[in-house]
Amino acid sequence: MTKALALESQKIRAAIREGQITGTSRGLALGFLQCNLAILPKVHAFDFLLYCQRNQRACPVLEVTDPGVPIPRKLAPNADLRTDCARYAVYKGGVRQEDRLEIADIWQDDFVTFLIGSGITFDGAFERECIPTHENRWVLATRLPTEPAGPFHGPMIVTMRWLTPEQAIRSVQISARFPFNHGAPIHIGDPQEIGADLSKPLFGGPVPPLPKGKVAVFWACGVTPQAAAENARLPIFISHAPAHSFITDVPADSLMTG
Amino acid sequence: MTKALALESQKIRAAIREGQITGTSRGLALGFLQCNLAILPKVHAFDFLLYCQRNQRACPVLEVTDPGVPIPRKLAPNADLRTDCARYAVYKGGVRQEDRLEIADIWQDDFVTFLIGSGITFDGAFERECIPTHENRWVLATRLPTEPAGPFHGPMIVTMRWLTPEQAIRSVQISARFPFNHGAPIHIGDPQEIGADLSKPLFGGPVPPLPKGKVAVFWACGVTPQAAAENARLPIFISHAPAHSFITDVPADSLMTG
Repeated sequence: MTKALALESQKIRAAIREGQITGTSRGLALGFLQCNLAILPKVHAFDFLLYCQRNQRACPVLEVTDPGVPIPRKLAPNADLRTDCARYAVYKGGVRQEDRLEIADIWQDDFVTFLIGSGITFDGAFERECIPTHENRWVLATRLPTEPAGPFHGPMIVTMRWLTPEQAIRSVQISARFPFNHGAPIHIGDPQEIGADLSKPLFGGPVPPLPKGKVAVFWACGVTPQAAAENARLPIFISHAPAHSFITDVPADSLMTG
Repeated sequence: MTKALALESQKIRAAIREGQITGTSRGLALGFLQCNLAILPKVHAFDFLLYCQRNQRACPVLEVTDPGVPIPRKLAPNADLRTDCARYAVYKGGVRQEDRLEIADIWQDDFVTFLIGSGITFDGAFERECIPTHENRWVLATRLPTEPAGPFHGPMIVTMRWLTPEQAIRSVQISARFPFNHGAPIHIGDPQEIGADLSKPLFGGPVPPLPKGKVAVFWACGVTPQAAAENARLPIFISHAPAHSFITDVPADSLMTG
């Protein structure tokens, strides 16, 4: 029996591969696990995996490919990691080069790819509970240190969402059910207490004053390991471009516990 | 102000270091996280960490020390991993040598220690809910495969507990709240369905027939990575001896979610 219908995730990836989609992955294939990518030479893979283990909340590693293999056989077995992310950020010596729509031509036989759970994955579960996910959300650096490993180091990066008190409480309950994908918030309330830098969001527009009736809620963010890899100034390091995560075939709900 | 009282975990480790305790860690320092140890040369550390990542349910890595450092600074900062486990199993080429009460004399500068959550950690939470932990419990090999990494491979090892239906249901709820320490059971009921080998328990006496009114409940077990490391036939590999886990200073309840 032939498989009549492709998964929504597979259709989206096909459109990305064809170059028909080059924008953000937010809102695409809602309900499927999205992953941040960290692609680096095998020689750095132990230190990076150790960094992720030591900072699991921010760096939930969901799959690691074998060297040179561009197929995430657990999370999306018919995908190609060289072409199926809408936009790639390429770093040389820690300096970001021009973004690319694919990386087949610079792929190396010793590349190991880390697929790290993205907070975007919550969005489907949040939307079902009427917690809005399309606005009032920023990615911010903080003064919270992470635990280094080898050359990888840096502050924790967080996602801040503005929610009503009722939504905030519900969001804690829902995200806590994703312990392997950032889990519950790490902070709620005053951004200063974690040194969240509102002046320079890494993603999202400028942060306006907090409206009355809203509370800020902060989650450890999968951009954290990417920032640590930038800080390591490796000769070559590739990631998804911010907010252009890789879409897997895994239903986000399958990661839920509790 | 001086710290007047040492933690129960610290007192027990001091007694182990002095050679006053050489038996099982079951029932000791109840309520503190206990860890299985896997000690191996740095050259194998990436593959082993990857094996654990790929089989997270069975291999919850809670700390990895830097090469040559015998101090688990996160989980027990004043402990010494060379002396503070009651009994060590030493493997050469995959063959178990005579057990040791300490390993200071065979310690190597390139040794990396993995501290892996033990199911013993549940026991405090189970006992509080009147789920007995001191009997009717075995460690068994199964026919469930794990996902290999480098030379590390082998079947999933499970802990089987016999419980009343009421206890079984409660045990699912409680253990599910420890997602970073094996979590919920992987199976309940017929041992044959996962190929659990009742004839040769790895720990616990011979398995008698299941009494009427009891149900078998199975958890992924931290002996799994140890078995995978044995199968890798490394020149040198050291672990805790079965049921002689390393006692940390971390309250088990601090790992709870939900």
